[in-house]
Amino acid sequence: MKIYGDSISGNCLKVRWTCDYLGLTYDWIETDVLSGVTRTPDFLALNPAGQVPLVLLDDGRPLAQSNAIILHLAEGSGLIPADAYERARMLEWMFWEQYSHEPYVAVARFQVRFLGRSASDLETRILDRGREALQRLEDAVGEADVLAGKRLSLADVALIAYTRVADEGGFDLDAYPAVRRWIRRVELELGIAGRGA
Amino acid sequence: MKIYGDSISGNCLKVRWTCDYLGLTYDWIETDVLSGVTRTPDFLALNPAGQVPLVLLDDGRPLAQSNAIILHLAEGSGLIPADAYERARMLEWMFWEQYSHEPYVAVARFQVRFLGRSASDLETRILDRGREALQRLEDAVGEADVLAGKRLSLADVALIAYTRVADEGGFDLDAYPAVRRWIRRVELELGIAGRGA
Repeated sequence: MKIYGDSISGNCLKVRWTCDYLGLTYDWIETDVLSGVTRTPDFLALNPAGQVPLVLLDDGRPLAQSNAIILHLAEGSGLIPADAYERARMLEWMFWEQYSHEPYVAVARFQVRFLGRSASDLETRILDRGREALQRLEDAVGEADVLAGKRLSLADVALIAYTRVADEGGFDLDAYPAVRRWIRRVELELGIAGRGA
Repeated sequence: MKIYGDSISGNCLKVRWTCDYLGLTYDWIETDVLSGVTRTPDFLALNPAGQVPLVLLDDGRPLAQSNAIILHLAEGSGLIPADAYERARMLEWMFWEQYSHEPYVAVARFQVRFLGRSASDLETRILDRGREALQRLEDAVGEADVLAGKRLSLADVALIAYTRVADEGGFDLDAYPAVRRWIRRVELELGIAGRGA
């Protein structure tokens, strides 16, 4: 399996972490999104959305969208709850992540860390919705150790990716102590504690 | 099962259509998002994200996020491909819908039809990305009758919801003839041809 990914992207790291946790072997093809390579005809032929992560499965067939990829790779593993309702709640968090968390928490971090903007110059809407998303996580992981079911699932993998680096976008993680504890727990269990992004 | 939904919302209609197609019985509780009811404490206790659709399953447990709901309700049905790769591609489209289609195609329509803005006054970014999403669909359904696998799946249900009313946001669907044919096919198969939204 080939993973086209940019190591600065939480969406790409989700795929790497899932593979490492499950012991799947892969070739990581470092793909610099800032270079424009994901907009070349060769890349667009593999993923018309022009985004990483992109996976070429063992048989060469392509698959895109980080959360769809990890759902596929983790099928039948303990990262997906066996109980139908817990599985549905995991999916609820994963769709919420892409709609209500990533477009604010990840976008703020990208603009500050990689485009050199000042956090105080970001759109108010991005900062407000980012804080709203972090507060929702704070409430959820204050009540339970994990987001869905009773143990680590893909919901935690998907949500930790950009939450653990939210401070790089100007969000103060000290305001979310339960989130900080959850990050430490999930990082330890995933074996990514101390690793950069 | 109770469905809290607003009939003007494509995200909510996805849930109704999936239930009707599968012959599931439900109570539809019309929930006007413009009234602010989804931001009341009672509603937030059921869905902290403050959004519809929200489903209370037969046992009273809540489930949110349109695509997570329809994945749960359709489990084991023909709307989810049996083949693992086709299922993954269906999920790829569903995550893409929430990240790269809904925030532009649905948001443009909401601002024009429900907030009374003129299409020409919308943010350029919303219009550009909306057109990009429609063009990607045009390419996909020009090559195949359905988005994932060989027959109707939840990918088609998820994507048709706002695509069929994209003209209400100022997008010219005549520029996407394959999309228009796909809309007609999917509407017929879902039994929603001629129904408003």
